[in-house]
Amino acid sequence: MNERELVAWIQKRAPHFGQRVSVSIGDDCAVYRPGLNEDLVLTTDFCNEGRHFNLGDYTPADAGFKALARALSDLAAMAATPDFALVSLAAPADRVREFMTGVFRCAKKYKVTIAGGDLTKSDRIYCDITCAGLVPRGRAILRSGAQPGDNIYVTGPLGFWKTRPVPRLDLVELLRAKATAAIDLSDGLLMDLERLLFASQVSASLTQAPRAQRGATQRQAWQEGESYELLFTSPHKLPFRALGQVTRGQAGAIYYDRQRLTAAGWDPFR
Amino acid sequence: MNERELVAWIQKRAPHFGQRVSVSIGDDCAVYRPGLNEDLVLTTDFCNEGRHFNLGDYTPADAGFKALARALSDLAAMAATPDFALVSLAAPADRVREFMTGVFRCAKKYKVTIAGGDLTKSDRIYCDITCAGLVPRGRAILRSGAQPGDNIYVTGPLGFWKTRPVPRLDLVELLRAKATAAIDLSDGLLMDLERLLFASQVSASLTQAPRAQRGATQRQAWQEGESYELLFTSPHKLPFRALGQVTRGQAGAIYYDRQRLTAAGWDPFR
Repeated sequence: MNERELVAWIQKRAPHFGQRVSVSIGDDCAVYRPGLNEDLVLTTDFCNEGRHFNLGDYTPADAGFKALARALSDLAAMAATPDFALVSLAAPADRVREFMTGVFRCAKKYKVTIAGGDLTKSDRIYCDITCAGLVPRGRAILRSGAQPGDNIYVTGPLGFWKTRPVPRLDLVELLRAKATAAIDLSDGLLMDLERLLFASQVSASLTQAPRAQRGATQRQAWQEGESYELLFTSPHKLPFRALGQVTRGQAGAIYYDRQRLTAAGWDPFR
Repeated sequence: MNERELVAWIQKRAPHFGQRVSVSIGDDCAVYRPGLNEDLVLTTDFCNEGRHFNLGDYTPADAGFKALARALSDLAAMAATPDFALVSLAAPADRVREFMTGVFRCAKKYKVTIAGGDLTKSDRIYCDITCAGLVPRGRAILRSGAQPGDNIYVTGPLGFWKTRPVPRLDLVELLRAKATAAIDLSDGLLMDLERLLFASQVSASLTQAPRAQRGATQRQAWQEGESYELLFTSPHKLPFRALGQVTRGQAGAIYYDRQRLTAAGWDPFR
């Protein structure tokens, strides 16, 4: 298939929900009509062969599913409901349809309109997805809202990369109602907790370890990324594993049983 | 520099205009507050080493400038005013700052807020930029609006790739007032004209050749892409090179001196 045939193939299958995206694939740009009293929440994430997945462990379709799910996890961490996405794909011609099939599967599952994208050739798969979601005005949950005295929660067991990530969009309403700050656990609990604390200019005093996934070590639960669970803070008592509390103190400092922990997680430039 | 240091470097220098982007680099997502009575126009474009530029011909900063300018050219073709961009960059660690310096130079020149992005490591530069612009509601100029009898205009001389593209944002007001359809000339005049005609379900009868850039052949003017000029249709008489007229007939057919021309341009999957 040449470029035009591939774009036609994609255009025919791209999921579309609602009326807000009035122009999608097939023009220079997509056109979107915003609603009243809503903020748009936007994220962009690479999902690249050899770095974020290998074709030994993933089918191209699973890699495509993950590429969109990664972006949706960022939206969940802001308490946003997904709306539309733009998919930029650089790939060998014979991988395009398989990969996009996985993207579309994820888009259908979470009701995301594929509003456009870019397609070009590459010897390996490089995919960047920009995803937009909605929150009522001023209601996005940021990293910077944690208050001393808040409980620190993790939404599920941690330990190793999930090949088929499940973005925690089921928690969006709860976060809007109860959370003061949130972050998605993409780079490891310690590193992401440190980021949240730093953004909020607070410390943490932990008394509980995170739950480990079956087969994972405690060390993995603290350090491994890509669990696609959320870390959030709230003054409320909630049915999630509470690791401890937000405290006043040096921005970003984490204490566990009074010992200072150092963040170590996924740094792609190490 | 590790990832955190690079992100801090970027965060400190990223241009920011106006109040609409309330959360930018440093959280899971950007937060944007849409205005009233406006449509958002969104595009995403790869600019990849070895495909869209080579570091023999471009400095990393020039490549970064071009990466954003490509997206701005798409906005110009929809008659949209640029507002903000998200920059996803996969690159060797020692190229990041140089490349982003070029992106920021372009952002400052055209008043684009850098609202966020993604940064990861790669052995070559892969950059995907999503750019959002604004038009008054319902006023985006599409490819599909050309009417039989309209004149077909090209906004400048064509012929070879421009290393330092100048997106025709100076023409946004004129397009809104006068154009029925527009497209940016990214893949060559014949191929892009065919796309516009196909989207509008019309033919073209041409009587004039496009102006060739100094040093370019007539053949190059017809076929080479990446001129970053615009092709548009209008019922009005305007001070641009008019190639001919939109006619009823087979969708996408192009006639020049009564001979049928076939589109040939840049197909990345050939």
